[in-house]
Amino acid sequence: MRVWLLDTGTLVIDQSHITWNQGAGTPVRFPTYGVLVEHEDGLLLFDTGYDLEHVNEVLPFELPEQEVSQTIPAQVELCGFAASDVAMVVNSHLHFDHVGGNKHLPAAEVLVDAREIAQGRNCEPFEALGYSDRTWDHGAARLVPISGDVEVAPGVRLFETPGHTIGHYSMLLTGAPDSRPMLFIADVTYTQDSYDRGVQAGFHHDPVAGVRSIQRVKDLAAEHRADIFLTHDLEAWGTYRHAPEHYTI
Amino acid sequence: MRVWLLDTGTLVIDQSHITWNQGAGTPVRFPTYGVLVEHEDGLLLFDTGYDLEHVNEVLPFELPEQEVSQTIPAQVELCGFAASDVAMVVNSHLHFDHVGGNKHLPAAEVLVDAREIAQGRNCEPFEALGYSDRTWDHGAARLVPISGDVEVAPGVRLFETPGHTIGHYSMLLTGAPDSRPMLFIADVTYTQDSYDRGVQAGFHHDPVAGVRSIQRVKDLAAEHRADIFLTHDLEAWGTYRHAPEHYTI
Repeated sequence: MRVWLLDTGTLVIDQSHITWNQGAGTPVRFPTYGVLVEHEDGLLLFDTGYDLEHVNEVLPFELPEQEVSQTIPAQVELCGFAASDVAMVVNSHLHFDHVGGNKHLPAAEVLVDAREIAQGRNCEPFEALGYSDRTWDHGAARLVPISGDVEVAPGVRLFETPGHTIGHYSMLLTGAPDSRPMLFIADVTYTQDSYDRGVQAGFHHDPVAGVRSIQRVKDLAAEHRADIFLTHDLEAWGTYRHAPEHYTI
Repeated sequence: MRVWLLDTGTLVIDQSHITWNQGAGTPVRFPTYGVLVEHEDGLLLFDTGYDLEHVNEVLPFELPEQEVSQTIPAQVELCGFAASDVAMVVNSHLHFDHVGGNKHLPAAEVLVDAREIAQGRNCEPFEALGYSDRTWDHGAARLVPISGDVEVAPGVRLFETPGHTIGHYSMLLTGAPDSRPMLFIADVTYTQDSYDRGVQAGFHHDPVAGVRSIQRVKDLAAEHRADIFLTHDLEAWGTYRHAPEHYTI
């Protein structure tokens, strides 16, 4: 498999949003990205970043920085494909910074946890901003509700890791035996520091489930000898390869 | 019934701890207090404030301000009783700022939600500071686990309002027909602002349950035409009668 990390721009939140109840008062800029996987079954994209127009309209206080080159169509083209080549989208969950590019992928089946779809359509009051971008739910979207751990293609496994949201998934990519598997934990924890200390984000649906999911991704990483990829850590992001550079596993 | 609010001093937390994920970076000083009820069945105390020595040792960053006159024994004496006269303690929940005076009440039965007792003894990692004062669990404590809505004495009713913690109770006092019932919502919401807007505290065990409990206390207040008493709102606290002044209902 070839794997590209697609840069979809940055946002700013408070440190206490990253490490629940800790560090209030310090703004932190953090990255968002999608993961493009070229697989023998087709082109797959895990998460699609945020839509700049939506954030400017609904959450301008998160100070978005996203160039045209950091939109999903531009990033997919950077890897030598067209947006219409993407056959399958998996959304780890339906928060606005993970679904913003869905609407640009007309040919894709969109796999999302079944409870997550229901929650995205009818969320708790405290989740309203998280689920504020509903464009994933457009009429032509080919939503495929999934549940439980599932292997969506050989070597592409999704693991249930709820807590941050009700139907949150992490993705494990397993390639050639001599390569390190890649584990994308999405928003189980945002940063290396919070991963190491086991601190979930201030945004969450079920913090007890969140504690279990942090342990789960640590166990998965150990069991599969996988490299962990953090979603919202600017320092870690700086150490990853960005499209058009890629990983081969 | 005669009802006294016992001043047990103040603490400082961040605004985002009071209004979950909102207002990060602004420190807020807030009151803590107990509710002493002189009832024909005996003297009852709902919550017992914090222990200064404990906070100075474990949470000094909450900048406690508590005079000797603001300890539970001193406050109970201010109302004309001795600490040993208190026959029943009810803890809304077992966080340190609601149980600190328990150890000074040797004669009391101590009513606490059964799940709350288990949680206080073996909590989630994110609850460790909240449950850090374990002196309520001393060997001589006469703990009485309770569950469900319960009338602990005529006119003294406890209502399950979980979310902030797993076994959180609110207390409704109903007196003479021509008096307004008093509803003590403990930590369902901390302030008038967060009550009005339906925003729970950043400290919580189950935020979905928390949303339901906010609605529940609002429904209870409407049904019983009760006055709401907020626990951690310095401005509201300034409008209440403080011991030795009392309410008669």
